[in-house]
Amino acid sequence: MGGRQLPTLYGVSLGPGNPKLLTLRAVEVLREAPKVFVPSSKGISRAEAIVSYFTKKRRIIRLDFPMVKDEAIVAKALQRNASRVCSILQRYGSCAYAALGDLSLYSTFWRLYPYVKEKMHDLDIEVIPGVPSFCACAASAKIPLALGDDIITIIPLSASRERIENLARYADTSILLKIKPSIIRSLKLVGKEYQQAVLAMHCSTDNEQVRVANIKELEELSKYFALMIVKRRKFL
Amino acid sequence: MGGRQLPTLYGVSLGPGNPKLLTLRAVEVLREAPKVFVPSSKGISRAEAIVSYFTKKRRIIRLDFPMVKDEAIVAKALQRNASRVCSILQRYGSCAYAALGDLSLYSTFWRLYPYVKEKMHDLDIEVIPGVPSFCACAASAKIPLALGDDIITIIPLSASRERIENLARYADTSILLKIKPSIIRSLKLVGKEYQQAVLAMHCSTDNEQVRVANIKELEELSKYFALMIVKRRKFL
Repeated sequence: MGGRQLPTLYGVSLGPGNPKLLTLRAVEVLREAPKVFVPSSKGISRAEAIVSYFTKKRRIIRLDFPMVKDEAIVAKALQRNASRVCSILQRYGSCAYAALGDLSLYSTFWRLYPYVKEKMHDLDIEVIPGVPSFCACAASAKIPLALGDDIITIIPLSASRERIENLARYADTSILLKIKPSIIRSLKLVGKEYQQAVLAMHCSTDNEQVRVANIKELEELSKYFALMIVKRRKFL
Repeated sequence: MGGRQLPTLYGVSLGPGNPKLLTLRAVEVLREAPKVFVPSSKGISRAEAIVSYFTKKRRIIRLDFPMVKDEAIVAKALQRNASRVCSILQRYGSCAYAALGDLSLYSTFWRLYPYVKEKMHDLDIEVIPGVPSFCACAASAKIPLALGDDIITIIPLSASRERIENLARYADTSILLKIKPSIIRSLKLVGKEYQQAVLAMHCSTDNEQVRVANIKELEELSKYFALMIVKRRKFL
């Protein structure tokens, strides 16, 4: 409204892994942003590879997010990353942070944001939503996740057995974002009525592996895949 | 592999409502498809409005999906729609069906597909995943849906009270795709620990309305919104 514009941090959802599954708005922001931060552990991450389709290499800055449980180490890294983001915001007035999937689902973006906000109170953000991995997985498997009255539950790796069992009992579709043997056993206990499973990794990319399986094959197959969807009702 | 190419039905996810939230692949398919089917009740639907950004009007064909509970009427409409899709597939070799949100989530596409498949056994499909409405809602509200160990449940309007109560007890985030008063009462019963709610409609469009509310305001506000997200933990 005629006033001074606040520095703007853009959160860009990169989708499941295929550059063609970015939204038009995501591409627009990546092309225009003076700098684009990407989370990285070592080497070129898939996020960085996607971003480099749409912007110059010199505009990309890697941010290290240590994959450890020690909260003090994580907090220190987030502090350091927030400082880097703020110095770019101060210099250029805007920048983007880009990560895989949809940012509202378990993304480092929302771990980082409170630290940025604390250092820089006058800050605007715009979040560009994206395609979640499990939607790409269902598309590749050529089946719906849910129809009609179906209830879905989305379960990350670290959920407790009690919660998983209770949720699986009442949901028609369970989406497991990481697979571990104890989850499979829990599902087998409660999931006698489950009829269809999809196991997948690297959905939408050249390395995609998708398998629509019988529920009985789960325990064996689960060693090889990263994402699993189990459904009470079989589709076709 | 050198063989005859099968007729191809493209399922195009249109995302939450803003044309800029289509994926590059969705736009590519809409531009190239000889004909694009859109579900319609009366007048120009939002799906049709979005599709018309990317293709010529004469390429768009409306398909009537009656919003009734009578399964016989619905089946008859699906039969009729499938016949129209098959005749276009036979004539042009390919066509697209485009609908809002992500097609894996409660979409008419998967209601229609078995009828098309029955009429035309030799058929390829490609499904283009999209941005679900609840991801756009979280982006507009500028909060994450889930972080860390959080478990999400997605509940359509018609779920029974018993299931909703049990799910809400074990999930950290509940996404309600339609709101009705009895669901609100159920959530109030079990959700004493819920701390944050987002109510929204028309997310990502010019008519967007988003409200991040206190859980106590739910019952009053729920009359005016279409989508609701309740979270056990408050974000910022």
